Amino acid sequence: MNKNNSLKIGIAGLGNVGQGVFRILTEQKELLTKRCGRQVEIVAVSARDKSKDRGLNLSGVKWYDNPVELAGDANVDCVVEVIGGDSGPAAETVRTALKNGKHVVTANKALIAKHGVELAKLAEKKNLALQFEGSVAGGIPIIKAIKESLVGNNINKIVAILNGTCNFILTKMEEEKRGFAEVLKEAQQLGYAESDPSFDVDGIDAAHKLVILSALGFGIKPDFGATFAEGITKITLQDISYAGLLGYKIKLLAIAEKNSRGEIEQRVHTCAIDAKTDIAQINGVLGAVKISTDSLGAALFTGAGAGMFPTASSVVADIADIAKNNISKPFGVSHKDLIAGKFSKIENHESEYYLRFFVKDVDGVLSSIASILSNNGIGFEKIHQELLPSKEAALVMITHNVKEEKIKKSLGEISKQNYIVSEPLFVRVEEI
Amino acid sequence: MNKNNSLKIGIAGLGNVGQGVFRILTEQKELLTKRCGRQVEIVAVSARDKSKDRGLNLSGVKWYDNPVELAGDANVDCVVEVIGGDSGPAAETVRTALKNGKHVVTANKALIAKHGVELAKLAEKKNLALQFEGSVAGGIPIIKAIKESLVGNNINKIVAILNGTCNFILTKMEEEKRGFAEVLKEAQQLGYAESDPSFDVDGIDAAHKLVILSALGFGIKPDFGATFAEGITKITLQDISYAGLLGYKIKLLAIAEKNSRGEIEQRVHTCAIDAKTDIAQINGVLGAVKISTDSLGAALFTGAGAGMFPTASSVVADIADIAKNNISKPFGVSHKDLIAGKFSKIENHESEYYLRFFVKDVDGVLSSIASILSNNGIGFEKIHQELLPSKEAALVMITHNVKEEKIKKSLGEISKQNYIVSEPLFVRVEEI
Repeated sequence: MNKNNSLKIGIAGLGNVGQGVFRILTEQKELLTKRCGRQVEIVAVSARDKSKDRGLNLSGVKWYDNPVELAGDANVDCVVEVIGGDSGPAAETVRTALKNGKHVVTANKALIAKHGVELAKLAEKKNLALQFEGSVAGGIPIIKAIKESLVGNNINKIVAILNGTCNFILTKMEEEKRGFAEVLKEAQQLGYAESDPSFDVDGIDAAHKLVILSALGFGIKPDFGATFAEGITKITLQDISYAGLLGYKIKLLAIAEKNSRGEIEQRVHTCAIDAKTDIAQINGVLGAVKISTDSLGAALFTGAGAGMFPTASSVVADIADIAKNNISKPFGVSHKDLIAGKFSKIENHESEYYLRFFVKDVDGVLSSIASILSNNGIGFEKIHQELLPSKEAALVMITHNVKEEKIKKSLGEISKQNYIVSEPLFVRVEEI
Repeated sequence: MNKNNSLKIGIAGLGNVGQGVFRILTEQKELLTKRCGRQVEIVAVSARDKSKDRGLNLSGVKWYDNPVELAGDANVDCVVEVIGGDSGPAAETVRTALKNGKHVVTANKALIAKHGVELAKLAEKKNLALQFEGSVAGGIPIIKAIKESLVGNNINKIVAILNGTCNFILTKMEEEKRGFAEVLKEAQQLGYAESDPSFDVDGIDAAHKLVILSALGFGIKPDFGATFAEGITKITLQDISYAGLLGYKIKLLAIAEKNSRGEIEQRVHTCAIDAKTDIAQINGVLGAVKISTDSLGAALFTGAGAGMFPTASSVVADIADIAKNNISKPFGVSHKDLIAGKFSKIENHESEYYLRFFVKDVDGVLSSIASILSNNGIGFEKIHQELLPSKEAALVMITHNVKEEKIKKSLGEISKQNYIVSEPLFVRVEEI
C-alpha cells in the first residue's frame, strides 16, 4: 500500500488539537524521523471549512470535507481523530478507520468512555492500534504510565485534577475572593471555559476522563453510567474561605479507588482536602494525577492538563508508538479480559464531611443541629461559627468518619428546621 | 530456543532490587501474563551466596554463582542485571548477554552513564533491548516518559531530585534543626545511606542518573566527565535557616539545560530555590523530575525515587516491554545519531547566588564585603545579618544575576580579609 516506508497520517479535525498535531508533525519532522526510525507524513486532513486560514501549509495534503471519507482513504495508514463528541462524525470516523484496517489515534474522551470496549474489539480483531493518550490530562502521559510503566503494579487508588476549567475557577475564587459566576465569565473570556460550560462545571468532562483511567487501572470495562459526577456550582466563596480557616482547600477531584469491600468507587465531586497536601498545591489550569499502587507506592504526575500543544504532544506520542510498531491492546489487556466493575453506590461512601449551614442568629441552633447529627450517629471534630453582615450566622463543621447516607438523612432533617436560611451544603473530605 | 512462547528471564543479582523483581514476577504472574499477552518466567538467578535465606522459592530456577555464566545460558531470553557498579561482573554480564543475543534490563546507572554508547551499539547490532528505567529515579517512569511520551518535544531543561539520601538529610536538617553529621548517622541506621556515604553525599550518584536523563533528553552521548558534581557536605544548619529566612529552601538538584549560548549545562549541586515552588515541597526520600519542553510546557513527576519495590516496578516494566516485543533503541535514537554534547563550564554559569560569611563582629565588615563585590560587578538584592552566640556575626546575601567566575574571584578576595572567621560559602540560586 505504501510506496515507501513512511507512516501516512490522516488528521480528522483541524481545531486546536488538530492544528497542534499538524504543526508538531511538520515542524519536528527531522526529530521524529530519527526517533521513530521512519518518516511520519501527513497525507490527508479533514475539517468543515476549507477556506478558513489556519496558518497551515496544506499543499500536497489531500482535503476531505467529510472525515468519514478520509477514514476510507486507501493511502492513509493511521487516522487521527480530533473532532470530539461521543457520536456523530467522530464515532463514525473511528469505526470506519478501524474497519478499513487503519490505526487510530484519538483525543476523544467521551468516545472512549462510552464506546471503548466496542472500539477496542474492532481494533484487536485486526491487530490495530487504538491509542488515546490525549483524551486524559492533556500533555501528562498518564495512560502510558498506567498501561506500560505500572504493568507490574496493582493500583489501589487514582486521585486526579482532570478539569482545568474547574480548577481555574476554584483557584481564582480562593485567591481573588471572587464569586463563581464572575470567575466563570473570566474563564470564558480567556477561552478556558465554553460558552455552555455545563460539561466542565458539572463534572461530566472529568468523569469521562476518570472512566478511562479507572478502566485502565482496574482492568474493568469503561462504565460511564457507574460514575458519580457532581460539579462545582454549589460551592460559594464563603465555603472556600471557611474550609480554608479549618485547614482545607476545596478542589474538584476525580477519584477511582477500591474500597474496603473490594468495590470500586468512581466519583467526581468537590472535595475538602488538607491544604498542605501535594494535590492542594495544583492551581489554575494545571492537571494532576496521583496513583497509589502496591509496589511503587504513590506517584504524582502534574503538568498542562489541556491546551493545543500539550494535548497534541500526547497525540504525537501515540502516533510515534505506531510508527515504531509498538502496537498494544487499547486497554492494556484484551477487551475479552476486561471485567465488569463492581461499583459502590455513593450513599455507601464513607469519609469525614464538611458541613455548612446558613442559619438565623437565634438561641439553640447549634444544640439543635448537634443533636440531630448525634441522633444519626454523627460526631464532629472541628467547628467554626461566625455572624454574617446579614445578621444571620454561618455554622461550619468537619464531621468524624461517617457513611454518606447518614449525612443526607441528617441534612434532610436539619433543612426542615425553621432556623435554616438556605439549603445546607456538604462537601466530602478526601484524604490525599 | 524456547519450548513455549514465554519470555525466559535470568536475574543477575539478588540484592534488594533483584529480590523485588523476583517477587513481583512471581506474585503478579497472572496479571503480567494478561498484560503482556504471554508468560514471563524466571528460569535462572545468580548471586554470591546460595545458602542465604532470601524468602524466595527458587525451586525449578537454575542457580549460577557466576552471573557471566548466567548471561551465557542458552535458555535465557532476557538478562536482568541488578548487581551494580560500572565495571567488574555487572559490566561483563551485560556485555556477555548482548553478545549472546539476549535482551538486557538493568538498573545500573553507573554502567549506563559510563558505557551507555558502547552497550547501545552492541544491542542495536542485534536488535536487542537494553532497557534501564530502574537506573534513574527508582519507580518514577521518567525514562519512558522522555523516550516515548515526549517524542515530539524539544526539551529545554530537566531539574530533578535524584538522590533520596541527600534529600532526606537536607529535609531532616531543616525540619528538626539537626546538623549534617547527626542526620547522616540516622540515615545510615535507617538504611537510606551506605556506610561509605560519599557516592550519595558528594553528588556522584545523582550525577550518574543526570547523565542518562541528559543523554535521552538532548540526544547526546552520555558524558559523565562533562558533569559538574558537588555534594551537600558544606551546607550547615545555619545556612538552611538563613536561606529559609530569605524565602529559600536548599536542595541538592540535578540539572541539565540548554543555556542561552546553546551549550548544555549538566550539573549537580546544592541550590537555593524559592520555598514556594513545587520542587521545594519534595521532602524526605522522595524523588522528582521536572521537564520543560517546547510543546508540553513543564511537567513534574514525583514518587519513590529509590527502594526495593519501586525500583523493581520499573525493572518489571522494562521486562514487560520486551515481552510485548516493544523493542526500542536504548537512547531513543540510534547510537549513531547521538551527538557529542557541547558543554558549558561551571565558571560560565550565571544565576543569583546565596553568599554566607562568618565574620568578626567589628565595624566596617559589611562595607568591605560590599565594596569587594561591587568592584567585581556584583550587586545584591537581599541581605541578612545576625550576631552569633560566639560574638561573631553571620552575614548572608542574595546577589543579582552574575557569572560564577566573578563570585569565585570575589570570595577569594574576601576570604583573605582578617575579619573572616571561616571559609565563605556560596550556593547557586536556581529558578524553578
